[in-house]
Amino acid sequence: MKDFLQEWASVLSEIEQILEQVLPSADTYPQVLHKAMRYSTLGGGKRLRALLVMGACAAVGGDVRQTAGLAAAVEMIHAYSLIHDDLPCMDDDDFRRGKPSNHIVYGEAIAVLAGDALLTEAFAELARLPEKYGVSPEVTVRVVGELASGAGSRGMVGGQAVDILSADGAPDEETLRYIHSHKTGSLFRAALRGGALLGGANQEELEMITRYAEYFGLAFQITDDILDEVGDAEQLGKPTRSDQRSGKQTYPRLYGLEQSRQMAEECVEHCLGALERFSERARLLRELAVFVLQRSH
Amino acid sequence: MKDFLQEWASVLSEIEQILEQVLPSADTYPQVLHKAMRYSTLGGGKRLRALLVMGACAAVGGDVRQTAGLAAAVEMIHAYSLIHDDLPCMDDDDFRRGKPSNHIVYGEAIAVLAGDALLTEAFAELARLPEKYGVSPEVTVRVVGELASGAGSRGMVGGQAVDILSADGAPDEETLRYIHSHKTGSLFRAALRGGALLGGANQEELEMITRYAEYFGLAFQITDDILDEVGDAEQLGKPTRSDQRSGKQTYPRLYGLEQSRQMAEECVEHCLGALERFSERARLLRELAVFVLQRSH
Repeated sequence: MKDFLQEWASVLSEIEQILEQVLPSADTYPQVLHKAMRYSTLGGGKRLRALLVMGACAAVGGDVRQTAGLAAAVEMIHAYSLIHDDLPCMDDDDFRRGKPSNHIVYGEAIAVLAGDALLTEAFAELARLPEKYGVSPEVTVRVVGELASGAGSRGMVGGQAVDILSADGAPDEETLRYIHSHKTGSLFRAALRGGALLGGANQEELEMITRYAEYFGLAFQITDDILDEVGDAEQLGKPTRSDQRSGKQTYPRLYGLEQSRQMAEECVEHCLGALERFSERARLLRELAVFVLQRSH
Repeated sequence: MKDFLQEWASVLSEIEQILEQVLPSADTYPQVLHKAMRYSTLGGGKRLRALLVMGACAAVGGDVRQTAGLAAAVEMIHAYSLIHDDLPCMDDDDFRRGKPSNHIVYGEAIAVLAGDALLTEAFAELARLPEKYGVSPEVTVRVVGELASGAGSRGMVGGQAVDILSADGAPDEETLRYIHSHKTGSLFRAALRGGALLGGANQEELEMITRYAEYFGLAFQITDDILDEVGDAEQLGKPTRSDQRSGKQTYPRLYGLEQSRQMAEECVEHCLGALERFSERARLLRELAVFVLQRSH
């Protein structure tokens, strides 16, 4: 795993710089709001979603420099979702990525607003794709659509809603699949498809990238469950309220640890299979798929 | 005032129908989330923002049928802001437009998510402007930018943050002006400019509409303050926590009731002045400005 992070260290540092520039500075009025937005977006996280944007663009032969705005936008949306997820009325988590949660530092009201603002500013950044990165308006509109659908009520927010609604009972397997595929999978999918669109993907390439997205999301979720089960809390962060409920279904509980690992490996094989027709330019996507798997070891 | 609402009743009923269609149906999974989104968006409100979109488009000679998506989007963003404003950690209001607040009916977690989803789906709807209404991708991207900036951390959310941060003290006049112009003014401005862009406004027309927006926002705020002062609670809804604090500055307290009324009238004159070069097509915008003033009588 270190290999991956070391190899892509310069890209990761570039993503930090992009976010640093896209987010309003900490002395922009109202300062507290902008500090809160920056607190939860900068200096943490594996930047998987930004890497997926870049990887998909590169895979289809696009100019990765055009992805900076979308890479920032997906990370801002991810950051907003974590701020809102951690609120007392949601998962009620006091810590995130080893630091106090946003609402612990800034209070609940500012945490709600910082999340709202990150979501909104993500779309403001997308509206700047033509002027800042020379993306065509046609592609920009499609990317806005991908991100809004992926993050919306039939995507990420839908998954979070079902997770919250299921927190007191024991959801069936179908419900859990919905939660997994929507709460995290939908934003992965939007990042990948958005990146592919920026790279000028044709319909067939877009379908391959979408196929990769489905298996990537599943591999991510299974390894997440395995990490939960083997208690690798350091890697994963604190488990959420829903993880902590006694009756929770996980892949290891349903299929056992070994079979779960095997399932995750099969997902990664499918990811690699979806990239078969792509050349060496799909290297980042290939390595990301393997990286997700290695998280469980 | 009845005259205005009666005269434009068919347009108002059209706006309801548009929202009804744009919002995911109540039986779309997850149903509770979609019911919560619909609860706070449909069947209430004066639809000022949607009317401003339509009025600006008409004023510059555009095809008002192209505004349906943006009209829905601004009303969805307004509805999301009200849901989040009413949360216990924000203004803590149990009632809104004479009904229990969203979080009273659906709980805080779903209320947060319903707001998040309304904001996100507003941008999803904008991404459909080209296919649904034949809007060019160029104009669509500009409209996305207007709405995201108006609703973002240097717009509506910024105003709400400063309002919350000032709630325990006695903010100075400058701070109050910031709150007013951002918490409500920024979305009016985005609605108007977005509508004008959809109508094909040239730079000069856009400047006139922007000038109208500034005075419209100010007139709205002064009459809001007057309504507060004379206790016309039926029209205005329950005052917010910040309204209730003892040291609150309002236009009537700063300038007296009569002078405030005069100031509001002057704002409306400026609104009408900004529309001088427009023909009869600016009728809706002219009547909206007068309508805002009449609210105080």
